[in-house]
Amino acid sequence: MRDDAMRATIMAIGRAAIAAVDPATAVAETVTLNDSGIQIGSLLVPDADSRRVIVLGAGKASPRMAAALVEILGDRVEGGLVITKDGYESPAGQIEVVAAGHPVPDARGQAATQRLLKMAGDAGDGDLVLCVISGGGSALTPCPPDGITLAEMQNVTDLLLRSGATINQMNAIRKHLSVFHGGLLAAAAAPARVVGLLVSDVVGNPVDVIASGPTSPDPTTYADALAALDAFDLCAAAPASIRERLEMGARGGLPETPKPDDPLFERVSNLVIADNARAGLAAVAAAEAAGLHAQFLTSRVQGEAREIAKLVAGAAIDIARSGRPVLRPGCAIFGGETTVTVRGQGRGGRSQELAVAAAQALAGEPNTAVFALATDGTDGPTDACGGLIDWTTIERARAAGGDCVSALDDNDSYSYLQCCGDLVRLGPTGTNVNDLYMAFGW
Amino acid sequence: MRDDAMRATIMAIGRAAIAAVDPATAVAETVTLNDSGIQIGSLLVPDADSRRVIVLGAGKASPRMAAALVEILGDRVEGGLVITKDGYESPAGQIEVVAAGHPVPDARGQAATQRLLKMAGDAGDGDLVLCVISGGGSALTPCPPDGITLAEMQNVTDLLLRSGATINQMNAIRKHLSVFHGGLLAAAAAPARVVGLLVSDVVGNPVDVIASGPTSPDPTTYADALAALDAFDLCAAAPASIRERLEMGARGGLPETPKPDDPLFERVSNLVIADNARAGLAAVAAAEAAGLHAQFLTSRVQGEAREIAKLVAGAAIDIARSGRPVLRPGCAIFGGETTVTVRGQGRGGRSQELAVAAAQALAGEPNTAVFALATDGTDGPTDACGGLIDWTTIERARAAGGDCVSALDDNDSYSYLQCCGDLVRLGPTGTNVNDLYMAFGW
Repeated sequence: MRDDAMRATIMAIGRAAIAAVDPATAVAETVTLNDSGIQIGSLLVPDADSRRVIVLGAGKASPRMAAALVEILGDRVEGGLVITKDGYESPAGQIEVVAAGHPVPDARGQAATQRLLKMAGDAGDGDLVLCVISGGGSALTPCPPDGITLAEMQNVTDLLLRSGATINQMNAIRKHLSVFHGGLLAAAAAPARVVGLLVSDVVGNPVDVIASGPTSPDPTTYADALAALDAFDLCAAAPASIRERLEMGARGGLPETPKPDDPLFERVSNLVIADNARAGLAAVAAAEAAGLHAQFLTSRVQGEAREIAKLVAGAAIDIARSGRPVLRPGCAIFGGETTVTVRGQGRGGRSQELAVAAAQALAGEPNTAVFALATDGTDGPTDACGGLIDWTTIERARAAGGDCVSALDDNDSYSYLQCCGDLVRLGPTGTNVNDLYMAFGW
Repeated sequence: MRDDAMRATIMAIGRAAIAAVDPATAVAETVTLNDSGIQIGSLLVPDADSRRVIVLGAGKASPRMAAALVEILGDRVEGGLVITKDGYESPAGQIEVVAAGHPVPDARGQAATQRLLKMAGDAGDGDLVLCVISGGGSALTPCPPDGITLAEMQNVTDLLLRSGATINQMNAIRKHLSVFHGGLLAAAAAPARVVGLLVSDVVGNPVDVIASGPTSPDPTTYADALAALDAFDLCAAAPASIRERLEMGARGGLPETPKPDDPLFERVSNLVIADNARAGLAAVAAAEAAGLHAQFLTSRVQGEAREIAKLVAGAAIDIARSGRPVLRPGCAIFGGETTVTVRGQGRGGRSQELAVAAAQALAGEPNTAVFALATDGTDGPTDACGGLIDWTTIERARAAGGDCVSALDDNDSYSYLQCCGDLVRLGPTGTNVNDLYMAFGW
């Protein structure tokens, strides 16, 4: 029989974690206006009244971040432009909100990015450019250099993705086929003061990777980009325009993206205002408030979902049996993002699949539960954010006709969790800081 | 450049962990003789001088456990018999040490087990039978009931293993085709007092699973054993003698193995004297003594080695960058046993493969290291116990001609770690409490 009181507590912990990384909340807790100026985290930008303040940005969370800045800074914000995904538009006062294609970039995104770069270019010495950047920001801002079309850029990206290029290889290419990413937004805004406010959807929060780093120094080079093409024997298959540009750049015939030692970055700051750790630590606080012992273990979980499930389930059992790594009742919280190697035809997502595999591991282990939660509210191509399973799930699902082995074989975690009532839907949350995998023992 | 001082510290932590689960040490810390009697953990067996004390057992660690008991109890030990693997024999005073086949059971094991049961049967009320049991103890003590041959038992075990039976299914079958396992050694020794001293090589320390539980109540039944055969359509393929016995048992025509509520167990105690947690907590103590922050997170890691590697490596990075889950310099210790899906022709083991995959994840993450360590000293079919890799491993291996991608593709972790000097050899340790995967950041 499932423990409904405990489940209610666990759901509340999940909700608290998501609330803590709400983009508007995170902006409000980071940016304040006081007599000395605008305080952004530990950074003070003095003389708020004498500066032009422009807000630019891209990503699914950018309209809500922009609106929060207007709320805090009021008329001191002169204007700006943020680009978001269709369906994610929400008003942001004097800051224009534009929708564009995602995950496949489109001409709307390209046109808006050009306008955004123009606004950045108009900013002068003493002006403050606040850049609100979140997941999705890279695809929303396609901006190939002259001589390369959006279609050619898409073509090479597709080739690389299908070849199994790493994220680092993809980034080297993307940044060297763009006049926006790899620090170039920050370069366009010089000599203005630039502050990037980032919601991180990348494990480890690398600011040069989140939305392909428009305000970050770029550690990659044209030579890296060319080597990435080479590594997959794509130099012949890639559009000639792209190959030629990368070759010219690698020979030194084009200016590089700005590097970490570029003096430009003396006027640029980047702050990650919401990330996986913030969500995980909020979950710890909520768990402790509910009388549980709690620890956030890591924000860097990666790997195949059903394998990581065994470890998370093991932690739940260990808490219940050994009081390790926390005393019981307690929870151990892992953050990060797993992957699913798709073998079947079913419906589901990383967190749902992890939940099903964890249910298998917890069968017959009284007083244990696992809550796997995609913080954006949409785990895989489904309307669920994950699953909250416990030691009774397998039995309850069996009674409802569900079989966990075939559900895993067919990657059909959604139906399985639905049949036993362990599917969790929270709706789109408007933020994304990867996943939380929470192990409970009591 | 690798940090040799840190590596020396890490190696010392690994050695301390293994020393803590040395079977002789663990016995010496558990069993003491005092004026009131023999103290075994929290259990006092009074009147040491007026009892016969017999030592019986099986497993790779059993000779050293037996010798430690002789050391502590001296002439109070009347005698006994332990069965171990060829090459693991070592003298145990008045307790006879016999070698037998492992992992394939043989007639030597069968004959020795029959003698062992005879000794147990000779123990009377008031006598104390100390059973020293460790990994390997199941295969070393084949003891099929009358009418079933060792060859027939092997045949059905092989069929099941190849069919992909779970450990629980295997156990139900094994225990119901044995007159030694599933609590039957304890039953044979009744009405004597029986104390099992166990070194656990099974994740979670289930006393009914370690060496197939000769002194533990058996939660499985003849019906479970028959269902396991059935589940793989093996009822026809299995030897007739076995099928008939299981069917007769399931119909109630044979006495069941003793169940948890059997009054027999009022005189039986089982103590796990060395396990993964003991090793992990000893590693924590050694790390703290060396000035590191340290935490033992779980003893229940399971899953594919290269996937778990990402999480362990992530913990190392998190410690170095975020002071999470422990402050730096620090170490987070995971215990358990991963698996390797063999795809290639190379040489290696779980811990070595985990180390190589972790090296990949740590490349470019300064001041991080992972030590993956099989506590028995022999990881897979190799003479190494694992690998101690750090953020410079990939680079050092590349300079030596090693490529981590092809090493993983070919499951050739041994050669890879050897080429860069990160292979660790400690020799056979005489114990086995699964693996430790230790993440370091500083």
